[in-house]
Amino acid sequence: MASEDWIAVDWGTSHMRLWHLRGSDVLAKVHSADGMGGLTRDGFEPALKKLIAELPQEPQGDVLRVFACGMAGSRQGWAEAPYATAPCTPPSAAEAVRAPVRDGKLLVHILPGVKQTSPADVMRGEETQVAGFLALNKDFDGIICLPGTHTKWVQVSAGEIVSFRTYLTGEMFALLSEQSVLRHSVNEDGWENDAFLAAVSHAMGRPAGVASDLFALRAESLLDNLDPAVARSRLSGLLIGMELAAARPYWLGQNIAVLGARGIANAYCGALQAQGVPVTLADAERMTLEGLKAARASLQEIVT
Amino acid sequence: MASEDWIAVDWGTSHMRLWHLRGSDVLAKVHSADGMGGLTRDGFEPALKKLIAELPQEPQGDVLRVFACGMAGSRQGWAEAPYATAPCTPPSAAEAVRAPVRDGKLLVHILPGVKQTSPADVMRGEETQVAGFLALNKDFDGIICLPGTHTKWVQVSAGEIVSFRTYLTGEMFALLSEQSVLRHSVNEDGWENDAFLAAVSHAMGRPAGVASDLFALRAESLLDNLDPAVARSRLSGLLIGMELAAARPYWLGQNIAVLGARGIANAYCGALQAQGVPVTLADAERMTLEGLKAARASLQEIVT
Repeated sequence: MASEDWIAVDWGTSHMRLWHLRGSDVLAKVHSADGMGGLTRDGFEPALKKLIAELPQEPQGDVLRVFACGMAGSRQGWAEAPYATAPCTPPSAAEAVRAPVRDGKLLVHILPGVKQTSPADVMRGEETQVAGFLALNKDFDGIICLPGTHTKWVQVSAGEIVSFRTYLTGEMFALLSEQSVLRHSVNEDGWENDAFLAAVSHAMGRPAGVASDLFALRAESLLDNLDPAVARSRLSGLLIGMELAAARPYWLGQNIAVLGARGIANAYCGALQAQGVPVTLADAERMTLEGLKAARASLQEIVT
Repeated sequence: MASEDWIAVDWGTSHMRLWHLRGSDVLAKVHSADGMGGLTRDGFEPALKKLIAELPQEPQGDVLRVFACGMAGSRQGWAEAPYATAPCTPPSAAEAVRAPVRDGKLLVHILPGVKQTSPADVMRGEETQVAGFLALNKDFDGIICLPGTHTKWVQVSAGEIVSFRTYLTGEMFALLSEQSVLRHSVNEDGWENDAFLAAVSHAMGRPAGVASDLFALRAESLLDNLDPAVARSRLSGLLIGMELAAARPYWLGQNIAVLGARGIANAYCGALQAQGVPVTLADAERMTLEGLKAARASLQEIVT
């Protein structure tokens, strides 16, 4: 089994990313917009096969194993993979559910997410990134921050997810910059790092005031022609600063790894480094793939 | 002029409300969706005449005076009415601008808004509600809170708007409840006052944590089937509690009047009363009309 062809899938709400591997070597990567949000239960297998058909080489072997993480395992997904409960190790193949398939050649394993009872919290997909990071950093003990639409702060110790908290920061940024009155005052991609860091520091000192600091961006835009790139950077800094104020018990005096896509991960790193916190940066997509590889390896242990 | 027919208009971004008055008596009220946001500069006079034509009685007289407040006076409006600068009395007829009209019978006065230099802030329309409240409460000294999409806290003393701050709270509530992941967890109109007040108190004590408390609503909905009416009330309470924490210097130990539409004004009153603050409630629409009457009365003083 070690050198067989297999498929790794990161199945999100709005997208799916798929890798074709031979053993641990990546042969190809493809993606589509067939996220869980746009599929009915019957639509997952066709969406998977459509994307596999786009691969440059047809996967070899009599059976084709697929390891998937993310929203495919949610209640509205392909097959519900019930949450593991923290504190726990990131779920491995033993906790995965098998998705129902018509094509007898496919063996589809969907990894569960992780839940926390109090305060109530959930993740689906990030646990696999944590598993990937731990596979590459076996003795890591500390905090993993996963910035995104719903940023997660995860406390990891002795290979376990001990506790975590999710912040709506990224989704608030998207809604405020694209759909609120502030859309007139910010541009699409400008970035002024000094303005960002000043806003982080301001909001950390006075987090309650963020809702009025946000409106001040609009007022300064009207009254003083505030630069839209500065406005965008301050908007991001205010929201991230508010999050850092609340997440202080997670990061203060801790060993931090930030796993994320380049732009947002760099922003979090910069904000944390400005607080004097040393940060390790790792690419989220690579961690997902490493996590799926680790899940497959855990199946081999069961099989062997 | 005292008993002439005239027109009062509250011209917002998304709507216009129009009253037909004879002296100080209201003969009729009509409204339309012809807000500033959907009109080009040439579209204001036709939109006004269209709504006047819907009145049950045609206004009498050789000329027809119109007093308008709100976004019709913005840079993208009918005619820009430059902001007065706080501290100042609410703008009167002397500061109004005359809108250009084709119909020689119309005399259109547009009242300006008020700006503040530091921290930068602006209002357009609320200053007229403040004027209306002061016309009815001549010796009021204290804080006027105007809840809405962009809630304003206005410090009033000796008839002047001394300072003010705007909070994006209402717009954040709309975006989060209608467009974020929380839309799956809240319903459209449920209300649980105890859950609201508990969330206000929670957020006042720990305002930085609101972005994670918001995600917890989603998690509790997934894990514990949280009642959507409770979720909606907590969402509102978290955002208003965060605002009250920041606005504390405005309301603590103060004389407070809340001017707003019934639902949201009641929520703010309840939240403030729970902090032991005595509150006077007044209807925002009525205050707008009283403010436009006061502006017309100030014109009579000039004319006389």
